[in-house]
Amino acid sequence: MASFLGIFTKRNLLVLSLALNLSLVLRVVYEGGKDGGPHGFSVEEQRGPSMADMGFGKEAQATQRTRLSVSSSSDQDVMEKVINLDHGDPTMYENYWQQMGGRTTVVIPGWQSMSYFSDVKNPCWFLEPEFAKQVVRLHNVVGNAATDGRQIVVGTGSSQLFLAALYALAPKDGSEPISVVSAAPYYSVTKNLFTCWQIKAKSNASSYPSMTDCLKSGLYKWAGDARSFNKEVPYIELVTSPNNPDGFVRHSMVNRTGGILVHDLAYYWPQYTPISSPSDHDLTLFTVSKATGHAGTRIGWALVKDLEVAKKMIKFIELNTIGVSRDSQLRAAKILEVMTNTSENLGSFDSHESFFKISYHLMAERWQLLRAAVNRGRAFSLPDFTPGFCHFLNQDSQPQPGK
Amino acid sequence: MASFLGIFTKRNLLVLSLALNLSLVLRVVYEGGKDGGPHGFSVEEQRGPSMADMGFGKEAQATQRTRLSVSSSSDQDVMEKVINLDHGDPTMYENYWQQMGGRTTVVIPGWQSMSYFSDVKNPCWFLEPEFAKQVVRLHNVVGNAATDGRQIVVGTGSSQLFLAALYALAPKDGSEPISVVSAAPYYSVTKNLFTCWQIKAKSNASSYPSMTDCLKSGLYKWAGDARSFNKEVPYIELVTSPNNPDGFVRHSMVNRTGGILVHDLAYYWPQYTPISSPSDHDLTLFTVSKATGHAGTRIGWALVKDLEVAKKMIKFIELNTIGVSRDSQLRAAKILEVMTNTSENLGSFDSHESFFKISYHLMAERWQLLRAAVNRGRAFSLPDFTPGFCHFLNQDSQPQPGK
Repeated sequence: MASFLGIFTKRNLLVLSLALNLSLVLRVVYEGGKDGGPHGFSVEEQRGPSMADMGFGKEAQATQRTRLSVSSSSDQDVMEKVINLDHGDPTMYENYWQQMGGRTTVVIPGWQSMSYFSDVKNPCWFLEPEFAKQVVRLHNVVGNAATDGRQIVVGTGSSQLFLAALYALAPKDGSEPISVVSAAPYYSVTKNLFTCWQIKAKSNASSYPSMTDCLKSGLYKWAGDARSFNKEVPYIELVTSPNNPDGFVRHSMVNRTGGILVHDLAYYWPQYTPISSPSDHDLTLFTVSKATGHAGTRIGWALVKDLEVAKKMIKFIELNTIGVSRDSQLRAAKILEVMTNTSENLGSFDSHESFFKISYHLMAERWQLLRAAVNRGRAFSLPDFTPGFCHFLNQDSQPQPGK
Repeated sequence: MASFLGIFTKRNLLVLSLALNLSLVLRVVYEGGKDGGPHGFSVEEQRGPSMADMGFGKEAQATQRTRLSVSSSSDQDVMEKVINLDHGDPTMYENYWQQMGGRTTVVIPGWQSMSYFSDVKNPCWFLEPEFAKQVVRLHNVVGNAATDGRQIVVGTGSSQLFLAALYALAPKDGSEPISVVSAAPYYSVTKNLFTCWQIKAKSNASSYPSMTDCLKSGLYKWAGDARSFNKEVPYIELVTSPNNPDGFVRHSMVNRTGGILVHDLAYYWPQYTPISSPSDHDLTLFTVSKATGHAGTRIGWALVKDLEVAKKMIKFIELNTIGVSRDSQLRAAKILEVMTNTSENLGSFDSHESFFKISYHLMAERWQLLRAAVNRGRAFSLPDFTPGFCHFLNQDSQPQPGK
């Protein structure tokens, strides 16, 4: 058993612990909850009262929602219904957007946006100008990323942008594929856990290693943990901060300089972590799914300093999907616009409608619930994060990982 | 000169001829047109009268449209504005969809379709059930593809599905990449033409060879023209019918059996070619962009007989884009629903509103214009296609390639 555990780092174990904890919390609430009724409970219903405290008490009627519900039939059913942890499906923000009502509704006539082209004057010809405008506006208001002098590249989620970055940064004439590394634990652990538990999981577990290596590319290859990478060869390091899945703030971990860095800042938003300063990297990835909760919309964006790198990313997206859905960009633009407006109390929005303030409290509430449940046992523990001053919320705030 | 020409097949030359013809037609109309005014003309305006004959006379007000316009400033300007031929940007159907008005409008509230998951019970968990339903309905009404016993896989355009098919069909443990072939001329010629003419084209020219080889995959590699492929190794043959760019009906061209076939039937719709019978292949690709003209929506679909192949395609799409935009699928579903309803005179639709009948006449009109212009000179010619009986239109109809 000791040697078996020896293959894990402390962080691996932490993540294992977190995942088990979540499962246990669900069981605890399931067995001890009062509101669940005979057929189970839904997480959305559990958080109802606190949302009510913030003026969001009316249980809205959501259609097409995927609830994280647990039935009472069997253990197997329970486990099968926990699998959405795999991607941290962010339906927790649904209630908020329902309360925003028609202000975030998009109306797209049948004849609109038919052309492939969104903006023929932009190197990223498939980038909707309105989406680009709202990205810049949001970053300026939140203060989490510098946008001046960057080319915005829109992608079909940040997964596509990650692959586009590898394509753009890898030498085309190298004698062997460039190494791609990231500090463990990285975006793949839940998949391993599911395999470990022999759960017949919905096979939607993507991960940096499997994404990188799925086509056995001659341009790049996965080379494992950045901490132990010591080859004297060129490399691309993916820096995910706050990290998925453990939530810690990250910097480059390879023990030398000269690597090409790609920063995945999907969780660098006020509800998940204190916003200390605007990020200012060469190539930074963001995604609507984590920022706003609209995972089904499949929109991400990259801020890229070097125009030639951006052009290669654009080429990759042309070759793979001939651009990015214009409908989804228009919808994302509307959502981002409302987020920014609620943050600035613009238009018809009151201060108590701020998306980031409400989602910060929502995350705090969920972490309190998790900690309370874990504290009822002794088998597992949760990490303590160091609070920091958030310049957006203008207060000390707790890191509250979204996964 | 003779040896230079010798490297081209007759079909290469035909395509070269067609492309030059299109350029000349634009020049002819530009120099001789009466409606263009001092600053040029737009193709949409040219077709106005005939659309009027079919009850579509009112010039609708399109916003966000990309017109194929030609300015009068210089040759370079002219050439730069012809580049949309590269993808055959299908904005010619805009007028039709404007006339359909609110019946094709989609309204998406901010809280809708937030989850990654569209249908957790479907192997293709990111497939919107309503989109799948409308795909089946449309194929059944048009009669261009058998859908029974097929898994529908939705993709971010058919480009993504083509790559997903290569991933799914290539052996994962082969000693070398499987060969991918297609009969020339294939989807790449316009790019070569632009390079030939040293036009600084918008670099959006994707093509089967560049899509296949862009990542130097160890799973598959481009192996050229199917007609001359004679290696005794496994291969995947892409059969595009009607073919892009020359419009001819195609079958497998490799001179032996045993290949794995992928059928790209993007143009197998009544406005482009007679519908002779429902296609019944192992793996068939379609795309909304060519069927309905909604290129900016980035939605395609595959009909796949073997569920295990479908699952691998689904895995590829997970790894690359974690599914397909749900907003776009909902919009595409609405468009397909209206297409089918107009074909069946259902709901509020009259017989003169049939999408396929109107678009068939629109294509006929454009080909008449093209032939008339080409006939004014002697340098080039257009191919004569063999008419066939179209079971959908219930009449003999002419092939009318869309590119």
